[in-house]
Amino acid sequence: MKIEFPKIIWFEKEEGLKVAFLDQRDLPLEENTFVAKTVEEVAKAITVMVIRGAPAIGIAGVFGMALGAAQGRDLQEAAKILRKSRPTAYDLFFGIDWFLERFTAGKDPVALGEEYYAFIVDKCKRIGEHGNTLIKDGARLLTHCNAGALAVAEYGTALSPMFVAMEAEKDIFVYADETRPRLQGARLTCYELSKAKVPHRVIPDNAAGYYLAKGMVDLVIVGTDRVAPNGDFANKIGTYEKAVVAKENDVPFYVAAPYSTIDFSIETGEDIPIEFRSEDEVLHFRGERIAPMDTRAENPAFDVTPAKFVTGFITEKGIFTPEEIAGLKEE
Amino acid sequence: MKIEFPKIIWFEKEEGLKVAFLDQRDLPLEENTFVAKTVEEVAKAITVMVIRGAPAIGIAGVFGMALGAAQGRDLQEAAKILRKSRPTAYDLFFGIDWFLERFTAGKDPVALGEEYYAFIVDKCKRIGEHGNTLIKDGARLLTHCNAGALAVAEYGTALSPMFVAMEAEKDIFVYADETRPRLQGARLTCYELSKAKVPHRVIPDNAAGYYLAKGMVDLVIVGTDRVAPNGDFANKIGTYEKAVVAKENDVPFYVAAPYSTIDFSIETGEDIPIEFRSEDEVLHFRGERIAPMDTRAENPAFDVTPAKFVTGFITEKGIFTPEEIAGLKEE
Repeated sequence: MKIEFPKIIWFEKEEGLKVAFLDQRDLPLEENTFVAKTVEEVAKAITVMVIRGAPAIGIAGVFGMALGAAQGRDLQEAAKILRKSRPTAYDLFFGIDWFLERFTAGKDPVALGEEYYAFIVDKCKRIGEHGNTLIKDGARLLTHCNAGALAVAEYGTALSPMFVAMEAEKDIFVYADETRPRLQGARLTCYELSKAKVPHRVIPDNAAGYYLAKGMVDLVIVGTDRVAPNGDFANKIGTYEKAVVAKENDVPFYVAAPYSTIDFSIETGEDIPIEFRSEDEVLHFRGERIAPMDTRAENPAFDVTPAKFVTGFITEKGIFTPEEIAGLKEE
Repeated sequence: MKIEFPKIIWFEKEEGLKVAFLDQRDLPLEENTFVAKTVEEVAKAITVMVIRGAPAIGIAGVFGMALGAAQGRDLQEAAKILRKSRPTAYDLFFGIDWFLERFTAGKDPVALGEEYYAFIVDKCKRIGEHGNTLIKDGARLLTHCNAGALAVAEYGTALSPMFVAMEAEKDIFVYADETRPRLQGARLTCYELSKAKVPHRVIPDNAAGYYLAKGMVDLVIVGTDRVAPNGDFANKIGTYEKAVVAKENDVPFYVAAPYSTIDFSIETGEDIPIEFRSEDEVLHFRGERIAPMDTRAENPAFDVTPAKFVTGFITEKGIFTPEEIAGLKEE
């Protein structure tokens, strides 16, 4: 079987070039298209989170540059507009620079955009092929947050081994943590698993420990936002708890990410800054207040998991132990 | 200072005896009163969860019996109606039997109900006094779910040491896990902490590990639904994860409960059955669907934490290590 992934971004060529997005704000219940006719509108799509997930934002940046080039825009100006759309996503700057280095007059900007897309998809597919070697027939997996097609492209990172296992017709089952406070697990991971017909259940984040302790999870795979050269890594808040509880129960814990996620400019996870998001994400649910009016919240968006809890890193270049990561060099 | 606790249940004596409840279904944003004029209406209040938490349900059972006695009802019939209101709460049966054993013609049923209430409150207060000895000035505490006035009476169990520390004018700070899926932490614990002016923040359950790892929590106190004689205990789903992560970070982890919560009829936590609740609690939020329509959920309501993760049990008779629990006898 071949999985049909949700298309998160594409060029529309009729009646003038446009960049179209699956509007992720409306998932999982509505599948709406957001169409950007200008560089400014692509930047807006990134800012308002029509598209999210660092690698996906990188693709959006490249497609925005291609749109600007096709419309004869000043490319430095287009780059400036797109770079401002979200200030912290490294992939956005990487993608924009990738395009600027390669684009010259006479080249087809759309073809160049599609080349970048294929480059990212290829990395993801290879992560999945390496990761699939860890998945036995009948395996029950656990994942946290969303690191699939919606955050990256097609196979994604943490979900890629599961999709490759499905294509290899293995019998698998996935527990998806709902991932409070933004519910990326319940909303986005389950949307992807459902689309790909992967047998799954969503569970409260609190329930992951129950299934790990009961021996009902064979393997945990999560994504990551940044890996330190000592093997520590940052990911969505709650990842650390799952890693500690997995180790307590001798369940292998893997982290899937492109090799480029290793940040050789830092030493350990201590050097990774943790973003705190608005307390409204915790205090409200779709505009409705959950907690008392005078209660405040704390909302750290990420946590750092020390290397000792990681069984291995699944990259497009193969699977590395945390100790092996330390021996690698910046490309 | 003396903390004013929310009154969860009381007798109204004007224009005929009635049992009144703080309607916990509407908390934290609305404080409504539910008034029961008959034994049947008290049973309904328990069934529809106007009042919840095993010890609180026990008080409701006693007050229902007192109402029946005052109205000249057949007490065996009243007991039968009340026993059917929720089938699993042990305290309900205990409370009803307590009343039946003590009530005789000519006794004031209201005074007897209030005696039971005082008996429960006294236990809670003593749990708090013992627990308070563990709380240093400036301590930062973490709790999970709700085990305060709303679940028990006045001081509650897990929150009782914090309230006693506040009354002793200690400087404390509490992190309250929001406690998905039913959000008892965000809704009820924060309501109580807010009322008692205890400095606090609500955090996503996923964030507890972040604060434990950062050394920002000095002490964890949770409640429990059942303690096995080997020191294993059951509590709200997610408690196990917090206990494992607390131990990993050398943070003391205490369980507060009346001595009667130790179930000498079982051997270990393995013997405690885990209730699974409706998957709708995970898939919906106040009627609004979160996950894709064809995604299903698993919703275990409790988990069992092995004795090795427990620093001590705080009871009205003093603080016991898990090893000491094993040496205790049924009263």
